[in-house]
Amino acid sequence: MTEHPDQSEHSDQSEQSEHSERPDLAALQRRLAEFAAARRWQPYHTPKNLAAALSVEASELLEIFQWLTPEESARVMADPRTAHRVRDEIADVLAYLLQLCEVLGVDPLAALEAKIDRNEQRFPIGE
Amino acid sequence: MTEHPDQSEHSDQSEQSEHSERPDLAALQRRLAEFAAARRWQPYHTPKNLAAALSVEASELLEIFQWLTPEESARVMADPRTAHRVRDEIADVLAYLLQLCEVLGVDPLAALEAKIDRNEQRFPIGE
Amino acid sequence: MTEHPDQSEHSDQSEQSEHSERPDLAALQRRLAEFAAARRWQPYHTPKNLAAALSVEASELLEIFQWLTPEESARVMADPRTAHRVRDEIADVLAYLLQLCEVLGVDPLAALEAKIDRNEQRFPIGE
Amino acid sequence: MTEHPDQSEHSDQSEQSEHSERPDLAALQRRLAEFAAARRWQPYHTPKNLAAALSVEASELLEIFQWLTPEESARVMADPRTAHRVRDEIADVLAYLLQLCEVLGVDPLAALEAKIDRNEQRFPIGE
Repeated sequence: MTEHPDQSEHSDQSEQSEHSERPDLAALQRRLAEFAAARRWQPYHTPKNLAAALSVEASELLEIFQWLTPEESARVMADPRTAHRVRDEIADVLAYLLQLCEVLGVDPLAALEAKIDRNEQRFPIGE
Repeated sequence: MTEHPDQSEHSDQSEQSEHSERPDLAALQRRLAEFAAARRWQPYHTPKNLAAALSVEASELLEIFQWLTPEESARVMADPRTAHRVRDEIADVLAYLLQLCEVLGVDPLAALEAKIDRNEQRFPIGE
Repeated sequence: MTEHPDQSEHSDQSEQSEHSERPDLAALQRRLAEFAAARRWQPYHTPKNLAAALSVEASELLEIFQWLTPEESARVMADPRTAHRVRDEIADVLAYLLQLCEVLGVDPLAALEAKIDRNEQRFPIGE
Repeated sequence: MTEHPDQSEHSDQSEQSEHSERPDLAALQRRLAEFAAARRWQPYHTPKNLAAALSVEASELLEIFQWLTPEESARVMADPRTAHRVRDEIADVLAYLLQLCEVLGVDPLAALEAKIDRNEQRFPIGE
């Protein structure tokens, strides 16, 4: 299931351009790994630390919404500054999730697909 | 930047099989949206609620690691039961992140790419 | 103001009974320390682990509320089972907070008093 | 066991001084309620919002520790600036916990006492 993307051959970001206009999850995961390696951050990137950082970033995202009514929370992207902050925190959550997957050898898309399959069994559509 | 994947034309779940062997982020995001719609869960899926659920799931992932030493945390996938639990919680985090992106109209990959670009400016490689 | 149900008449812990009918924060902190010591859990109780556990418990408390409307969240104690769950999670949060304070040598009441003092300066009452 | 620095000799709050030199949990809870009422913040203080804020503050506390080794985390109070930050975040966690208890009518000390009683049953001391 696992075998996260080969980090060897990489990748001066040209993997983006060759794919298309859209960034690719595996390519971003490689960029994150290279980013951390180039700054010698790997010793800090234990699974435990990355899981903690992920949960801290998820809370920073929640913080944006904590005092809003449900209706206000639905309009949060209308304000450009808040919208930027939301995108920034979403990026942080995804970044730590991908880095955690990297060090654990977990394929996040395969994990999610398997989970959706299980949930479709678990929560049948009532009709 | 945003305009999340068009949910109209595709998708009787066959989009997975026709794409390839690997699940695709956009396709999984569509499956999640259809899953929630089929169960009439959308009223619960305000941005605020999804941000709360995301942070709760991130904490459930952290819970697996909370009493482990850094070394133990690095071996967490060696135990099949713990490995399954880790993959399951990673899937939950990704599921809520994608659903939050869906309701906000945020493209998570574009957001992450932009963030990595900013971080490369912000943390230049010292040599 | 709070008129919460007095659950505290039992308490045959010697340190409690000498104080009064109500449990005392310092006495509960001592019981928690003795509880952990008797089970030889102290090696796990690093400040980092306790901070992680505290945040995990705070998320379990949030989980109770995550799909509720503001109005539903205000009625949460009306259901005895949910009320029990709320009290249980509040107890867990307080337990880890006190244990963290114990290992760090922080007086939580003094810290809170100092913070309220600062906040009264920072957020003057507008009139 | 706790020997934390006594910061509490000041406290000219009338509700404190009548009790003793140390701030009292119930008195601090009252100050928090008055603080919020004076600023008309009560409409924001739904149980759901306070539970979210509590979990956000617990994550801010965890953030201080997230990249530290267990050993570094044990020395965190040696640095005055970090020590201040730790006390500040602990105060925030306790503040939101007490405010949540206030709006729910939960006695946090009674809840904790009951939980310790249950845990003593659940985790008997092995001998």
